[in-house]
Amino acid sequence: MNELLEKGVRRLEWAKDHMPVLADIRKRMVDEQALKGLKIGMALHVEAKTGMLALTLAEAGAEIRLASCNPLSTDDSVSVALRDHFNLETYAKKGEDNEEYYKNLNAVLDLKPDFVIDDGADLITMLHTSRRDVLKNVKGGNEETTTGVVRLRSMANAGKLEFPVISVNDAHMKFMFDNRYGTGQSTFDGFMNATNLLVAGKRLVVAGYGWCGRGIAMRAKGLGANVTVTEIDPIRAIEARMDGFEVKPMIEAVKTADIIITATGNKDIIREEHFKVMKDGCVMGNSGHFDNEIRKDVLSKISGQPVKVREFVDQYNFSDGKKVYLIADGRLMNLSAGQGHPVEIMDMSFSIQALSIEHLVKNYASMEAGVHNVPTDIDRSVAEIKLKTLGIQIDSLTNEQKTYLEGWQEGT
Amino acid sequence: MNELLEKGVRRLEWAKDHMPVLADIRKRMVDEQALKGLKIGMALHVEAKTGMLALTLAEAGAEIRLASCNPLSTDDSVSVALRDHFNLETYAKKGEDNEEYYKNLNAVLDLKPDFVIDDGADLITMLHTSRRDVLKNVKGGNEETTTGVVRLRSMANAGKLEFPVISVNDAHMKFMFDNRYGTGQSTFDGFMNATNLLVAGKRLVVAGYGWCGRGIAMRAKGLGANVTVTEIDPIRAIEARMDGFEVKPMIEAVKTADIIITATGNKDIIREEHFKVMKDGCVMGNSGHFDNEIRKDVLSKISGQPVKVREFVDQYNFSDGKKVYLIADGRLMNLSAGQGHPVEIMDMSFSIQALSIEHLVKNYASMEAGVHNVPTDIDRSVAEIKLKTLGIQIDSLTNEQKTYLEGWQEGT
Amino acid sequence: MNELLEKGVRRLEWAKDHMPVLADIRKRMVDEQALKGLKIGMALHVEAKTGMLALTLAEAGAEIRLASCNPLSTDDSVSVALRDHFNLETYAKKGEDNEEYYKNLNAVLDLKPDFVIDDGADLITMLHTSRRDVLKNVKGGNEETTTGVVRLRSMANAGKLEFPVISVNDAHMKFMFDNRYGTGQSTFDGFMNATNLLVAGKRLVVAGYGWCGRGIAMRAKGLGANVTVTEIDPIRAIEARMDGFEVKPMIEAVKTADIIITATGNKDIIREEHFKVMKDGCVMGNSGHFDNEIRKDVLSKISGQPVKVREFVDQYNFSDGKKVYLIADGRLMNLSAGQGHPVEIMDMSFSIQALSIEHLVKNYASMEAGVHNVPTDIDRSVAEIKLKTLGIQIDSLTNEQKTYLEGWQEGT
Amino acid sequence: MNELLEKGVRRLEWAKDHMPVLADIRKRMVDEQALKGLKIGMALHVEAKTGMLALTLAEAGAEIRLASCNPLSTDDSVSVALRDHFNLETYAKKGEDNEEYYKNLNAVLDLKPDFVIDDGADLITMLHTSRRDVLKNVKGGNEETTTGVVRLRSMANAGKLEFPVISVNDAHMKFMFDNRYGTGQSTFDGFMNATNLLVAGKRLVVAGYGWCGRGIAMRAKGLGANVTVTEIDPIRAIEARMDGFEVKPMIEAVKTADIIITATGNKDIIREEHFKVMKDGCVMGNSGHFDNEIRKDVLSKISGQPVKVREFVDQYNFSDGKKVYLIADGRLMNLSAGQGHPVEIMDMSFSIQALSIEHLVKNYASMEAGVHNVPTDIDRSVAEIKLKTLGIQIDSLTNEQKTYLEGWQEGT
Repeated sequence: MNELLEKGVRRLEWAKDHMPVLADIRKRMVDEQALKGLKIGMALHVEAKTGMLALTLAEAGAEIRLASCNPLSTDDSVSVALRDHFNLETYAKKGEDNEEYYKNLNAVLDLKPDFVIDDGADLITMLHTSRRDVLKNVKGGNEETTTGVVRLRSMANAGKLEFPVISVNDAHMKFMFDNRYGTGQSTFDGFMNATNLLVAGKRLVVAGYGWCGRGIAMRAKGLGANVTVTEIDPIRAIEARMDGFEVKPMIEAVKTADIIITATGNKDIIREEHFKVMKDGCVMGNSGHFDNEIRKDVLSKISGQPVKVREFVDQYNFSDGKKVYLIADGRLMNLSAGQGHPVEIMDMSFSIQALSIEHLVKNYASMEAGVHNVPTDIDRSVAEIKLKTLGIQIDSLTNEQKTYLEGWQEGT
Repeated sequence: MNELLEKGVRRLEWAKDHMPVLADIRKRMVDEQALKGLKIGMALHVEAKTGMLALTLAEAGAEIRLASCNPLSTDDSVSVALRDHFNLETYAKKGEDNEEYYKNLNAVLDLKPDFVIDDGADLITMLHTSRRDVLKNVKGGNEETTTGVVRLRSMANAGKLEFPVISVNDAHMKFMFDNRYGTGQSTFDGFMNATNLLVAGKRLVVAGYGWCGRGIAMRAKGLGANVTVTEIDPIRAIEARMDGFEVKPMIEAVKTADIIITATGNKDIIREEHFKVMKDGCVMGNSGHFDNEIRKDVLSKISGQPVKVREFVDQYNFSDGKKVYLIADGRLMNLSAGQGHPVEIMDMSFSIQALSIEHLVKNYASMEAGVHNVPTDIDRSVAEIKLKTLGIQIDSLTNEQKTYLEGWQEGT
Repeated sequence: MNELLEKGVRRLEWAKDHMPVLADIRKRMVDEQALKGLKIGMALHVEAKTGMLALTLAEAGAEIRLASCNPLSTDDSVSVALRDHFNLETYAKKGEDNEEYYKNLNAVLDLKPDFVIDDGADLITMLHTSRRDVLKNVKGGNEETTTGVVRLRSMANAGKLEFPVISVNDAHMKFMFDNRYGTGQSTFDGFMNATNLLVAGKRLVVAGYGWCGRGIAMRAKGLGANVTVTEIDPIRAIEARMDGFEVKPMIEAVKTADIIITATGNKDIIREEHFKVMKDGCVMGNSGHFDNEIRKDVLSKISGQPVKVREFVDQYNFSDGKKVYLIADGRLMNLSAGQGHPVEIMDMSFSIQALSIEHLVKNYASMEAGVHNVPTDIDRSVAEIKLKTLGIQIDSLTNEQKTYLEGWQEGT
Repeated sequence: MNELLEKGVRRLEWAKDHMPVLADIRKRMVDEQALKGLKIGMALHVEAKTGMLALTLAEAGAEIRLASCNPLSTDDSVSVALRDHFNLETYAKKGEDNEEYYKNLNAVLDLKPDFVIDDGADLITMLHTSRRDVLKNVKGGNEETTTGVVRLRSMANAGKLEFPVISVNDAHMKFMFDNRYGTGQSTFDGFMNATNLLVAGKRLVVAGYGWCGRGIAMRAKGLGANVTVTEIDPIRAIEARMDGFEVKPMIEAVKTADIIITATGNKDIIREEHFKVMKDGCVMGNSGHFDNEIRKDVLSKISGQPVKVREFVDQYNFSDGKKVYLIADGRLMNLSAGQGHPVEIMDMSFSIQALSIEHLVKNYASMEAGVHNVPTDIDRSVAEIKLKTLGIQIDSLTNEQKTYLEGWQEGT
């Protein structure tokens, strides 16, 4: 256990050293004790980078409880280190069953938080259903990911969301970098770690060409794969095609796929009809939030219980001799089989988180229930701090240029 | 002359054969005589693809007058073919001086058009200044390019825009493809044609990381260049960096640049301070709308009158022996030194144009003066026709998936 | 005519300014009058860069006659400028028929050259067949291209080659750069100029994955195409696959090809069986040396005489309504429809040429008849001059490192 | 221990399932008992893929002893599984000290092998120095890697190599794929696993532009890095530049490097002068064979003993506050911090190994002492089996094409 704790402490310190943007913000927020006296409930993937966010908020004066937002994505060394070394109330362990998972989320809500930070919207959903007892105390929340925002917008459209939530996911400094470069890289961290298979020369299918899918397709190409994209949106389909990718319906794509990675935020992407015509030896993985993109339940109904052939790979054997493989039980592979997004990416995303919580604290009273965008100046200020930490200078507009952009009479 | 005309006719036919989306739309609009009895004034780069748009609108029943929106970008063969072979009233010739340029725009406005199609907003600006006599007759317009939209929004903000204008540029099927893949490719068509220089191994500086700049940087990398990006926006600066490009202020970038291409939509991007420290042998070109991104006036003041060393390249000689080069007199090089955007790109952009004019005709009465977005269903329908012409099928949502996306209660 | 001459002079000066490696070598060879009193017959693509090579050899003391090595690749402006402005005996004009072509090569041989510089080996073949009268005078030659070297090796294997020939093509500073980066870029210069079609999103088939094919595939990918490679060599086929390309036999590839480019150095690559199943609208071009890679004779037998639809594009109409297009009559498109390899590439290739001729002059007496490699020190010296002109410094081995590389006892 | 063994068995089975080329060869060699009665000593990185090679040779009739060729690269689970489950004499454990390392190699030689398979040439060097007692029994050997081949060529040049060795490394199916795509991918598997740092947007320096360096640079670019290459060879330096990379001497490159990866096969690449000017926070790793490319001894002399900050990362603290990081103690990071080359790559390399040993067995008597190339037909046959297992068909020459390639008289 001591070894595990030490490993976790080192991972947290490594993260700290590579999160200079959050460091800059932390310094100010701690000085100001910006969250003094507040209680914040958090459900995030519990690993080193989220640990740094939680510690930041704690140092800025808040009382924190942290649980995992996904049963498989916890880094136990960090969980232990947070709890035993940093005295942060942490409820998370890798491989929770459903009961433990919800028990931990309930423990977070038992804090009666003033604000919540969610990833996938399970916590906020509980507040509006099974835990309405603590709902009235909650003044606002942040939501981290696409899937969660989609759920919350549906809730808001149905008139069911009862406090303001900031969609952290929709900040430029989040979705353009976290979803694209973060998911892009970490998906292949997970893939390589799980399989030790070659990417170059493979036919790799990416389901979904949103920011995550774009990132995965870009990196797959960068690693030498021949990429096929599946989409439901005609505009994105054409974009994928123009980016040099093949575009097909999934039912065609699976027939030649060596590797399939789902990143849609929707469910039932790979289902019975696909398993049936899938190529022998196909490796499937998911980088979307929930483990419902690949219908593993249907898969084991067709092929019988899988055999674990590597730490993070299950082999499903069809009666006709066909084998297919599933990474990390269909849970998001970048966290379950890899180490999650690179530190520097989360530095930007969690800086948005920290500033958004601060914004909520100051402004919740005047914000309506519903989903709110991250204020532009928060987005821009994170970008400016990031540039500063990179030592990069950029141009600024001259007065003549400003005037020109505001004018319209100067032409040819 | 006959040879010129024949060349123009062939170019128009080639364009027609490679614009299947517009063909699909044309067929319907001609059947319906959707523009019957209307007068439309157009100012666009006069070459084969715009020619096809103009002919489409004419065949759909409209009376058309067409002038160039840029003094250097006309393809004379097409201009002649439109006028002499297709009887379309065309007022454009390559290398117009300022007086001719405005004379031609005035000729277009003398038609007393019901609607206008503009590119860069010179025509619409004239309507609101020197040609207010015909302004009252105009019921609406389309604007094609970023630069024009920026001008029109400034106009609208100042309360000066007196009719509804659809910002064609802001359709996804326009800016994502035309500005990125179109400008990306055609800039290098112009560059290679003008210089016969190698791109691989060069330090190439792109000013601006909007959609055009992204396209240019992407293609420069694809051709083997080592790319530096200059920006004024911190978020875009970080995006450029994450895309693997160096980011610097222009004053630093020019010192090592072999090639500089501007695509900002702003003015004075390369100016006196930059010329002074620029590397010997640097080749400059512009892919932005106006020829004011590179201060050629200042350049010739410093170095004296340039020498034309190739058809589209001027050499400026500094007193200390330094030489720098300017492509196409700083006018947009993809049209002036190349053949403009690839046909298939303009097929999508001009399909948006045709449907947007049709939309204006039907709805102008209920649209307020100001800049309007292209309706989503027009955007989507162009994408769907494009997919159909490519023979590409994509997935569609199952009912369960639709319900899931609209719901919020299903979680981990 | 004057305008043409002036254009040619400007193009030669532009080339001169962008060929710093050759300039460095020229300076020394002129100072030394290294070729004084010698007669050199040359058959090369007559355009600005070869013009600079010819002028270099002339200034170094040689008497030169220059003809074109390809009936379609001459830049008339340069041909005229060389002859009328620089007084170099030049026999070349764009669009020669077969009779003129051979008349010009004969004129070159009438000089009774001491050395020959050939590209494609037509000149050297004539020396060994129809022009054996002047063969005895020839002491050696250079051959520029893969196709020519293949022919000459066959000749040498058959015991028919009667003087030493340096295979310039096999220098690293030639084939790695000229064949790959040169052909890669100039093929698309030709493609864009000929067609104004989009590359992004197209299925582009490259026939042959030698250095030229690799360059074309790399640039096609860089421009956004989805690339298929055809090969006859299994090792190259796997390399293409690992580079992320699809590999197929041609008979399958043509069925979905939007664009096909041949670069094999072999004949009959696209033949009757392929035309029959080719996709409607397919655009074909050739970047190999001879115009026999695409069987245009068979094509016009099937479809009837083609219609010229753009300056460098012929349209072939099949009886069932299918249209296919051929660029530049199947002649190498980068020179026929574009401006040939970028200047800087030819700077390196022609520096190898100049130093190889100098080497032949000094050493022919001791060289056996047959095909010889470029001496390694010539290759390396061109690389070093190129680095110098780029202002790039590189590392050198320490003494310890040299010793280490020569030793073997130091291990784990 | 049982868990470890089970993990190793599963890893070996996974490898078996993904090495179809070797499977094809194994089938024949086992049927023929091609190595019956022979003793083979092997020193390779002991992990799943080499395990499959060893098992293949054993099943083909040979008596095998296997040790590790590197103290840090052993996968203990595989080592245990080979020994305890497959009864293969295996002497290897991760983290051997120098004494254990050589004890294990000696155990292999105690077998008195007929043939040896080496990786880095430590085994062959021992045979010619400390273990001359068993030298006379050895009839031939294979060497796997660039570093080993360089050592053996030095030995042969010095007249010290006393039996024939096949340079497996020089087969096309080895160096083009293993060194390039294998090292390219596995270096980043190691990097991500060790650091969880982002590659995109980083300045990454690659030392050496041989096949390994090319692979690393290509993948670094594919992951979004901005790459600098250092070289000692001017031709490779220009190739790197033309591939779009910056080229600099190391002393300049370290000043801005975020990440440095060495892959030269030489020693002392990063040394005192470089550490002194290195950027704060720089992460160093090595993908070359030996751990002498980065002078960690000098580094700890300057900065004091390092602190282990992650499982495979040491942090060196300079007195001025600068921190730099070293991955896997400077040992080859793809094996020490990652899982080594992807299975499919090793399938090709080890198929070359198996066929080369078979070739030695049949032909050693007629082969001179010295370094021999892999016979072309072995190279080609591995490529053909690989294509077959991929289901890829390629073209073959027609008779007319063969005749044409052999002829020379057909020209323009």
